[in-house]
Amino acid sequence: MTSATKKHIYIYSPSGAVRDKAAFRRGIARLKTLGHEVEVDEAALLRHQRFAGDDATRLAAIGRAAASGADVALISRGGFGISRILADIPYKAVAKAIGKGTQFVGISDFTALQLALLTKTGAISWAGPALCEGFGPAGVPDMADGHSHGEQGGPDDIMEACFDDLISGQGEGAGWRQHRENFASTPNLIAGKAVSKRAGEDFSIHNATLWGGNLAVLTSLLGTPYWPEIKGGILFLEDVGEHPYRIERMLTQLLHAGVLARQKAVLLGQFTEYKLTPHDKGYKLQTVVDWLRSQLKTPVLTNLPFGHVPTKVLLPVGASTDLVVEGRDALLFWGHPH
Amino acid sequence: MTSATKKHIYIYSPSGAVRDKAAFRRGIARLKTLGHEVEVDEAALLRHQRFAGDDATRLAAIGRAAASGADVALISRGGFGISRILADIPYKAVAKAIGKGTQFVGISDFTALQLALLTKTGAISWAGPALCEGFGPAGVPDMADGHSHGEQGGPDDIMEACFDDLISGQGEGAGWRQHRENFASTPNLIAGKAVSKRAGEDFSIHNATLWGGNLAVLTSLLGTPYWPEIKGGILFLEDVGEHPYRIERMLTQLLHAGVLARQKAVLLGQFTEYKLTPHDKGYKLQTVVDWLRSQLKTPVLTNLPFGHVPTKVLLPVGASTDLVVEGRDALLFWGHPH
Repeated sequence: MTSATKKHIYIYSPSGAVRDKAAFRRGIARLKTLGHEVEVDEAALLRHQRFAGDDATRLAAIGRAAASGADVALISRGGFGISRILADIPYKAVAKAIGKGTQFVGISDFTALQLALLTKTGAISWAGPALCEGFGPAGVPDMADGHSHGEQGGPDDIMEACFDDLISGQGEGAGWRQHRENFASTPNLIAGKAVSKRAGEDFSIHNATLWGGNLAVLTSLLGTPYWPEIKGGILFLEDVGEHPYRIERMLTQLLHAGVLARQKAVLLGQFTEYKLTPHDKGYKLQTVVDWLRSQLKTPVLTNLPFGHVPTKVLLPVGASTDLVVEGRDALLFWGHPH
Repeated sequence: MTSATKKHIYIYSPSGAVRDKAAFRRGIARLKTLGHEVEVDEAALLRHQRFAGDDATRLAAIGRAAASGADVALISRGGFGISRILADIPYKAVAKAIGKGTQFVGISDFTALQLALLTKTGAISWAGPALCEGFGPAGVPDMADGHSHGEQGGPDDIMEACFDDLISGQGEGAGWRQHRENFASTPNLIAGKAVSKRAGEDFSIHNATLWGGNLAVLTSLLGTPYWPEIKGGILFLEDVGEHPYRIERMLTQLLHAGVLARQKAVLLGQFTEYKLTPHDKGYKLQTVVDWLRSQLKTPVLTNLPFGHVPTKVLLPVGASTDLVVEGRDALLFWGHPH
């Protein structure tokens, strides 16, 4: 796959230190193979403790990304490090850059910057890949069908197509099929107060603010000045390495705080890399989903292709979005948010 | 050690299912050896998935503990399960029982009930042991010096002395010695806006509300109707199995929410059972403490003997308390809160 248009992509590290430098190099090579000009921030590979440089260094890197004039500012990786610099991020500079056409793309710890940016400026950024995990996987795409989903090696085909849609200005939406469990034991499935009282009924939502990201990072902003008070929105969530009881505790905090009930829909993405134990005795992620639905009138959809997985879509955080649900199929549509 | 007075102790399970039934039995035997009458709730050993019975069962158990007329209502263990039943806990019945002399004691997940109870009723409960981890350790106290700190087997001597103080109405305070790091590299150590501007200066605080508990559980209440809005208090925190970056993320949430700055002191207890990784490259718990102090004028004390460790004091959550700091030595004094 070669991109239709050559773009300027700026790589920087606002969070954790790059651990897998080979993946970093492969990611840059891949973006160049796709036809892009890649500019690497001077601090992208620095390390201070577990961070990609100390706090001042990472703040300066965010500033350089905003000043780069690039078409896309892409994080090298997530990790941890945004929370502690939230008070000093140059939000206005980032928002101004976005206004001039620089798309900020990232995932995981980057959720904190995205939501704080939305809170402070209303600017739209993209939940999507990071360089290392997205473009850095070893191997080449499977040539048999011209597609790869990460398993055979190389970057995921769908993610790259969505990324190409974004940078070429073609991206307008994302569709997926929900888990079958949605349509089994849970009577109030997709039966939202705001949209429909009848279980399993098709529905659609118009002009709702799409927002969300990593559940742990998002929840860690609740009660702070960086929390976007979004009502009537579409909230998407994903996480990695969190046991279902922790996922439940975080969702319960959002539930008790009234956050979930104020949304028109909650979209659960991919929750991966946790281990159930013998002590769980049947308690699992679906238990949490079922319980959440029993507490909430807002429809809870599953299986959004977003998270710490190769196959994921890019989602505009803060964009006015439509959601159409027909049976198990769901479609997000945001037109041209930028 | 034999208690001066025989007391009625009620054992119940509001959170996770009891896994170590031998520890449960040893704990009961130990309390009987200390001279107490022990009553075991009918659902104390039930299991539903990872919980000690389903939600209705655990709510009923809390109600029975409140109706027991016991001197102490002691949880069997922590785990997880309070968050999801917060809306239905019989707070008034628990507060009424406390008013009639039943002391509610627990730790870990129990923090959620304690803080919600404080929020809803102002009633004081005790952060302290759970039956299994506190009184259930195998072995007998070391007879050489008549003391045990859990290592040689058997329940911890200091914890049992504090428990005895509580039930005999003698408990009036707790003292400890802070980590030496407090008095080294951190210039604004115990230099609180409210108390002192000079590093290392002795200070005292009077009539402040003592509150806190497990950091993860406490933080999971922020933004919800179960969060106690305590100003000018003394906040104590502990946790288990949380990497320092997660501890930092939670403390940062409390910092950004203004919670820490509104307290007169923050007491860090024991943070245990986490693993640093090669990626941390020198980032450790002390890094988090140092960073927190650089962001905060409120004094941050360390090494409070409370947490998921054998040697711990009992602390009255919600009680008016004095704190006296002289050099490395700190003393909490609450007189007779009940």
